[in-house]
Amino acid sequence: MKFFCKQTDLSEAINMVMKAINRNSTVKIVEGILIESGDNKIKLTGYDLETGIEAEVAADITEEGSVVVESKIFNDIIKKLPDENIDIKVDDRFQVSINSGSVNFTIKGMDSEPYPKIPSVETENKIEISQKMFKNMITHTSFAVSTDTTRAKLTGLNLISDGHNLTLVAIDGFRMALNREQIGDDFPKMNYIIPGKSLNELSKILNDNDSDVVVYHSSNQILFDLGDVRLISRLIPGDFVNFDSIIVKNPKTVMEISRKNLLDSIDRAALLIMTDERRCPVSLAMPDSSTLLVSANTETGGHKEDIDISVEGDLIDIDFNAKYFIDALRNIDDEKIRIEFNGSQGPCIIKPVDGDKYIFLILPIRR
Amino acid sequence: MKFFCKQTDLSEAINMVMKAINRNSTVKIVEGILIESGDNKIKLTGYDLETGIEAEVAADITEEGSVVVESKIFNDIIKKLPDENIDIKVDDRFQVSINSGSVNFTIKGMDSEPYPKIPSVETENKIEISQKMFKNMITHTSFAVSTDTTRAKLTGLNLISDGHNLTLVAIDGFRMALNREQIGDDFPKMNYIIPGKSLNELSKILNDNDSDVVVYHSSNQILFDLGDVRLISRLIPGDFVNFDSIIVKNPKTVMEISRKNLLDSIDRAALLIMTDERRCPVSLAMPDSSTLLVSANTETGGHKEDIDISVEGDLIDIDFNAKYFIDALRNIDDEKIRIEFNGSQGPCIIKPVDGDKYIFLILPIRR
Repeated sequence: MKFFCKQTDLSEAINMVMKAINRNSTVKIVEGILIESGDNKIKLTGYDLETGIEAEVAADITEEGSVVVESKIFNDIIKKLPDENIDIKVDDRFQVSINSGSVNFTIKGMDSEPYPKIPSVETENKIEISQKMFKNMITHTSFAVSTDTTRAKLTGLNLISDGHNLTLVAIDGFRMALNREQIGDDFPKMNYIIPGKSLNELSKILNDNDSDVVVYHSSNQILFDLGDVRLISRLIPGDFVNFDSIIVKNPKTVMEISRKNLLDSIDRAALLIMTDERRCPVSLAMPDSSTLLVSANTETGGHKEDIDISVEGDLIDIDFNAKYFIDALRNIDDEKIRIEFNGSQGPCIIKPVDGDKYIFLILPIRR
Repeated sequence: MKFFCKQTDLSEAINMVMKAINRNSTVKIVEGILIESGDNKIKLTGYDLETGIEAEVAADITEEGSVVVESKIFNDIIKKLPDENIDIKVDDRFQVSINSGSVNFTIKGMDSEPYPKIPSVETENKIEISQKMFKNMITHTSFAVSTDTTRAKLTGLNLISDGHNLTLVAIDGFRMALNREQIGDDFPKMNYIIPGKSLNELSKILNDNDSDVVVYHSSNQILFDLGDVRLISRLIPGDFVNFDSIIVKNPKTVMEISRKNLLDSIDRAALLIMTDERRCPVSLAMPDSSTLLVSANTETGGHKEDIDISVEGDLIDIDFNAKYFIDALRNIDDEKIRIEFNGSQGPCIIKPVDGDKYIFLILPIRR
């Protein structure tokens, strides 16, 4: 194999595919980047056997072929080369020679033959979503994905289209994060569970502009096509938790509050919470219907402060894991929010003052 | 004790004194910040028994006193309070109450009585140095300070004034970094060894503008006075290495080279050097008097590249620790530099093309 390409193009493509490389794999070859020659371009692939990323780079191919290179050293070398053309040659024994001006590197490559094949995805079932919107939806929900691998479905996010709205939901057993966007009237219906890790990597390569990502799917794989870059992920089989049933429709207490004031206050209370979070919660109490008293007491010290609110319904006095509130409040853009409580043991629900663009649900800690 | 002060002033002062706090001390109380009331101000002190930093904050004192607070939690709390006035009260049992608007924190303080006293420094022997210049001199030399505590003197930097020039020198047994600045004609003579750690902390609090730092000294302590902030350090007793004797005056080879080209090249070679550096050096060779060949060969792979140079004297072929060259070359501002070699076992000396503002000396690795 032999080709020329631009240093900046190659370096950018390596960055993309490295996001899908697990450098602690037991399978040595998947710690590498697969490089294959194509039609006036080369294709780079990183694949950790769950998520695969392919990136294309415009190149002059003078000799066809393929090779696998160790990802870290290849990335380090290309990154440190001047912003000029790079000339790469691979010989029969997979020695990779990298040349740029007077600079020459030689590293050992590997035969690409044993590199695992990414499962193919049918390209008939396709939909288009705004990259910027989808990136936002992932950021605002994925923090609530479970890391408990014994409950496989909760390690994924549920992506649902009812034809009009696109909804992304994550649940970890103690809390839920839901984000919903209107997408039109004639959208294909969907209901998938996508691994949280894959969507996190996808969010890093999605653009902040208005271009679309094309999504293709088969029964067990999903492909996100951004043009020069593609991410392929397995789907998690089965049905997701029926989250609609856990959202209380008639709350006992409805509070309106400044998001920033509540976030700042819980952030401060959390300074004292250094040990086991269940034993050291943040407390929310209402001495009257226009005051929220936020407080925390641990071995380190005590904290308390008042925030102005307006309340309808029962006054509350309830304990929460500070981190769950902070995670939710940091992922809301609205200045004023609505929080619904359901007694000292029922879930607390954070919503917009109007509409249902997002719903964060947090279970309280029993006293 | 009871006082009011501004959140921004207090937070800034805490940041300063925390640089002198060793949070892994065996003496619990020196992990804290000493707060003492003064004349319309409070004084904060951090002291790790080698370096002490004092910072003053304008304050309304309504009750005199002193207390020691655990530095991390105090810093965390003050940092997260709004940019407003803070009201701090300490009761007889050293309970510290911190109030800002509707926010209240209570943390445990400690009696200040057992807090160690910083040794006093006579204020007669004083000199003034530009903060910006001194900060630069520290940055450009302190990387070569030894971390080997069995050779105590080399853990410090030698500060010398001959009345006209100020010189700062660090030596770690394998290399030397020297920086020299003209300071005038009538400057007091000095010759001290100052702990590298103290000067590193000082460089972080020195300003980049043209204001001066006033330096006071006694036989075993040195005080740097920046106005609102003071750093006090012990001096290392004894005489520093006679570095003049190790600088070769009649080099066998003199080379002029672009600093950036050499740095970039050694930086690239170092990518391959991951294991024991003595076994995997970077090689510098001269195939002719206008070419420097930089190369490295390790288990990871091979690197080689040419750089244009001009040489007088013997051609060389010599091995170095890449890191030492990179450290030196990163701390030079000049575009073109002069490098002197003295055979395959003599020291290599990096200097300006003209003058002696800096000298970096590196010992080669024997083949």
